[in-house]
Amino acid sequence: MIFIESKENSLFKNTKKLKERKNRNKTSKYIIEGFRLVQEAFKAKVHVDYLIVAEDAVNKIDEFLGEYINEEIKIYKIAANLFKELISTENPQGILAVINMNARILNSDGDFYLLCDKLQDPGNLGTIIRTAHAAGVQGIILTKGTVDIYNEKTIRSTMGSIFYIPIHYDDENFSLANELKEKGFNLVVTSLDTDKNFFQADLRGKVLLTVGNEGNGVSSEVLDMADTKVKIPMPGNAESLNVAIAASVIMYEKVRQNQPK
Amino acid sequence: MIFIESKENSLFKNTKKLKERKNRNKTSKYIIEGFRLVQEAFKAKVHVDYLIVAEDAVNKIDEFLGEYINEEIKIYKIAANLFKELISTENPQGILAVINMNARILNSDGDFYLLCDKLQDPGNLGTIIRTAHAAGVQGIILTKGTVDIYNEKTIRSTMGSIFYIPIHYDDENFSLANELKEKGFNLVVTSLDTDKNFFQADLRGKVLLTVGNEGNGVSSEVLDMADTKVKIPMPGNAESLNVAIAASVIMYEKVRQNQPK
Repeated sequence: MIFIESKENSLFKNTKKLKERKNRNKTSKYIIEGFRLVQEAFKAKVHVDYLIVAEDAVNKIDEFLGEYINEEIKIYKIAANLFKELISTENPQGILAVINMNARILNSDGDFYLLCDKLQDPGNLGTIIRTAHAAGVQGIILTKGTVDIYNEKTIRSTMGSIFYIPIHYDDENFSLANELKEKGFNLVVTSLDTDKNFFQADLRGKVLLTVGNEGNGVSSEVLDMADTKVKIPMPGNAESLNVAIAASVIMYEKVRQNQPK
Repeated sequence: MIFIESKENSLFKNTKKLKERKNRNKTSKYIIEGFRLVQEAFKAKVHVDYLIVAEDAVNKIDEFLGEYINEEIKIYKIAANLFKELISTENPQGILAVINMNARILNSDGDFYLLCDKLQDPGNLGTIIRTAHAAGVQGIILTKGTVDIYNEKTIRSTMGSIFYIPIHYDDENFSLANELKEKGFNLVVTSLDTDKNFFQADLRGKVLLTVGNEGNGVSSEVLDMADTKVKIPMPGNAESLNVAIAASVIMYEKVRQNQPK
């Protein structure tokens, strides 16, 4: 096992660069951190480029990752003080993996996709990805201006679901969303400007469900593309719902409607 | 307006003590922070004991709180460095309020209550309170071992909903939960040990919905009290859902079932 002790080491320097979004995009690689998430990556069979393990955590590899480690997996040991420079959590577990970005193509064979329109909070996006995976969503499209899915907080909130679901950024012309619309998808948006409750809409068949920005909701461009507007009623008169909650409630209404009676 | 400049000031010292749970419980007071939350407190007509405003934020009082301020509202101005000692956020807005804890009695006249069983994450609890308020839940019971609702992170996540909904801690014998059961409430728990999907259960009528701990789910004592066990299906084969998501999806299923056909 190669031991990295110097800040001048090129693998150290290249890995550290992945903390910035622009470098992640340039290299199509990102960092995940902690034993649980690394386990999930192996389980999901995503391409793990290499592992970096702090010297004081090397003895834990066997226990947590024994079943996944083979000769093809590159593992680097690193000095504890250098490890800290690579990650962002306060109480690191001493392991990270560098992963090649999901290259799975967004196909349109399924009947359930999600469009996240300018979402800002990494935790909200991560939680939405986690629920989408559970609810059987087949792909997620992010409009320009949405927070980076490879942000470490987003990744952590997905609890590993990020490895299972194809996620793509759309261009400024909403080409991906429009492609689904042309294939007969019902673009459903949440809006205050409708009397139709989400459970009164027919969500069977091909649905592209849209959730909007935390403060401003769905953008006017996407509202203009909508086929169906729905609201979530609030009998208790609260002002609003968290966006991950709103998205999840509607995703599960589609799960309910999809069940045979 | 009294100006607090010394750490020896007794109001400063007493307010600072409210950062600890035991002192909040002793005095039945808690701190809220930021203009938006203070506005919400006034709107909800909870009892605001006093306001403390950092010297550099005094000029914002009129703009944000003008309509609520009258002679009966006690406002203290404080040196900026002292203000920082009273709060926990990194970018404080320069205002806090000390609030008397919700004294509203949990009555059992409604048909929808929530039991949070040993929830640990303040953000999850806050988000659940926010959704519960929206969904028309009439009261929340917290079992012993649940995170403090007056934790500043919980309060922030409620977005003000904490001011609207009666919330009570149960004792070790689950007296409050049992009282509702005796009055005919259907104690519904989420469980992996059932084939019944949440939307196959009849959630009309009196429901006490239980959500459990993030790692361990609902405790065995509460499971033993359950009348109905439901699961949330995961057609996408994810491992689990976030607890605030799970709670919200089921709360909204009751909202759906409550609507006249």
